[in-house]
Amino acid sequence: MRDHLSSSDSPQVLRGIFAPTLTPVRADLSPDVARWIEFSHRLLENGCHGLCPFGTTSEANSFGLDERMEMLEQLIDAGIPAAQLMPGTGACAIPDTVRLTAHAVKLGCSGVLVLPPFYYKAITDDGLFRAFAEVIERVGDARLRVYLYHIPPVSQVGFSLALIERLIQAYPGVVVGIKDSSADWNNLHALLTTFPGFGIFTGSERFLLQTLRLGGAGSINAVANVIAPLQRRLYEQMQSPEAEGMQEEVNRFRQVYKDLPAIPALKQIMAHLRGDADWRHVRPPFVELSDAQAQGLIANLEASGVALPA
Amino acid sequence: MRDHLSSSDSPQVLRGIFAPTLTPVRADLSPDVARWIEFSHRLLENGCHGLCPFGTTSEANSFGLDERMEMLEQLIDAGIPAAQLMPGTGACAIPDTVRLTAHAVKLGCSGVLVLPPFYYKAITDDGLFRAFAEVIERVGDARLRVYLYHIPPVSQVGFSLALIERLIQAYPGVVVGIKDSSADWNNLHALLTTFPGFGIFTGSERFLLQTLRLGGAGSINAVANVIAPLQRRLYEQMQSPEAEGMQEEVNRFRQVYKDLPAIPALKQIMAHLRGDADWRHVRPPFVELSDAQAQGLIANLEASGVALPA
Repeated sequence: MRDHLSSSDSPQVLRGIFAPTLTPVRADLSPDVARWIEFSHRLLENGCHGLCPFGTTSEANSFGLDERMEMLEQLIDAGIPAAQLMPGTGACAIPDTVRLTAHAVKLGCSGVLVLPPFYYKAITDDGLFRAFAEVIERVGDARLRVYLYHIPPVSQVGFSLALIERLIQAYPGVVVGIKDSSADWNNLHALLTTFPGFGIFTGSERFLLQTLRLGGAGSINAVANVIAPLQRRLYEQMQSPEAEGMQEEVNRFRQVYKDLPAIPALKQIMAHLRGDADWRHVRPPFVELSDAQAQGLIANLEASGVALPA
Repeated sequence: MRDHLSSSDSPQVLRGIFAPTLTPVRADLSPDVARWIEFSHRLLENGCHGLCPFGTTSEANSFGLDERMEMLEQLIDAGIPAAQLMPGTGACAIPDTVRLTAHAVKLGCSGVLVLPPFYYKAITDDGLFRAFAEVIERVGDARLRVYLYHIPPVSQVGFSLALIERLIQAYPGVVVGIKDSSADWNNLHALLTTFPGFGIFTGSERFLLQTLRLGGAGSINAVANVIAPLQRRLYEQMQSPEAEGMQEEVNRFRQVYKDLPAIPALKQIMAHLRGDADWRHVRPPFVELSDAQAQGLIANLEASGVALPA
């Protein structure tokens, strides 16, 4: 089944530690593009192999189609290499997904992370296959590299193994990977063993070491916004005796905000680390943490003993 | 609490039998606008007080932002009175919802049916309030009339009674109604008794008679695409002894496709009634019924004894 796909170290499949970049917004809820660009540069300097702007953690689905395209252009114009970008481009409607995807490919992005259409529920594999086939055919660009975005806890619509196999067989070299944010080790393990060479990214930071050791491509985790240097060390030293300890430190960081909504919590941590309260702003339907929540969070963070970048 | 809202028969609140209009598409998945316009005229002639283009049954979330705006303009240009329209305009991102909503208001639509932002889950009332407040303030048009679209089985994000009260109090005369597609009589009953005079539409056809007798505004049901004349008779004769029998007939029609996906099934019924197989087409992620499903459906329809319009 796999002979039509190139090996896992082919340059066409992205690998490494990717951050679903937080999107700074101003008090008036407009995107703070300058801050976003600076932050993106910092993430790449601090260990990320690449970035996934407009992932779930990026509040992507709270930004309009036009905003997303304009911002992506600004990011690349500011020197973030398109070769290191895998932006989220999946929307509910095929024409909107095609628009975002074609735009990202045209800008040179090495991959796109594509949600399934997520409004309607109880959707069949046939329907999802047809939706992805339409998007791929309409984009019609040989440079297109699709990473399937499997995140049933949020999208409620996901990818079965049978559907993934069908998409790989129909579009070899185009459907090249997946981000598994199911938070289900059994699913991730099944992906890693069923589709060797497929670009499999764990969406759960706690499976990072296991994913790497089983030949996965890497990770796309919210925590990378803060602890990319630690994740990068783990990536580089995954066969060393220290790797388990690094994985435990990653897990410990995630525990810091386990009882809070992840996006407002991560932005609060950024505000704390940068000493800049503007980092707290989130777009509705999210709200900023309360003062009490923020104080508890920072206390947790300091008690965790996790080494944080300056 | 209610004194800032006008009475239930105020012209500012829409009333009656509304259809979430099916959207005909061609084999190439493009919208068949001419057929859609003809069908919309037919629905108004056959008993609908008004139409909700781009509701859930319309496959609204499978149409792109640009498509939706262009189609709405064509519908109104073709003579469908904007005063009888309550299009769906809710998207995940505030800028997209603002764009669709402002456009509909500018075209003269009497109301808009607005989904909450539905990608992110476990959203708080505070966050949803903030999202709706942003939309209303940004549209900034005195003609705006918002109907909240409560459909947790699909959107997974809904409106609590406390949130509804808060929105009504903050935006009296702007937040004027709700479509309750929770399929939960207890919720609908609570709405009808807590918010008398609010424009409450049942999204479940089986609650139509109860909704009307308790002072609700009317209904927005998928079944209206086929049995609007029956629903209209029930509306006109809701106090008569025959009303229960009509409600039973409505319920019997819904049973015809209870085991099938509703949108492909309704389009199959349209294809049957019109003798026109092109009516079957649906956009992905939906798929057309199989031949076996279609045959079973039409057998059910004929066995139901429901009187159908020519």
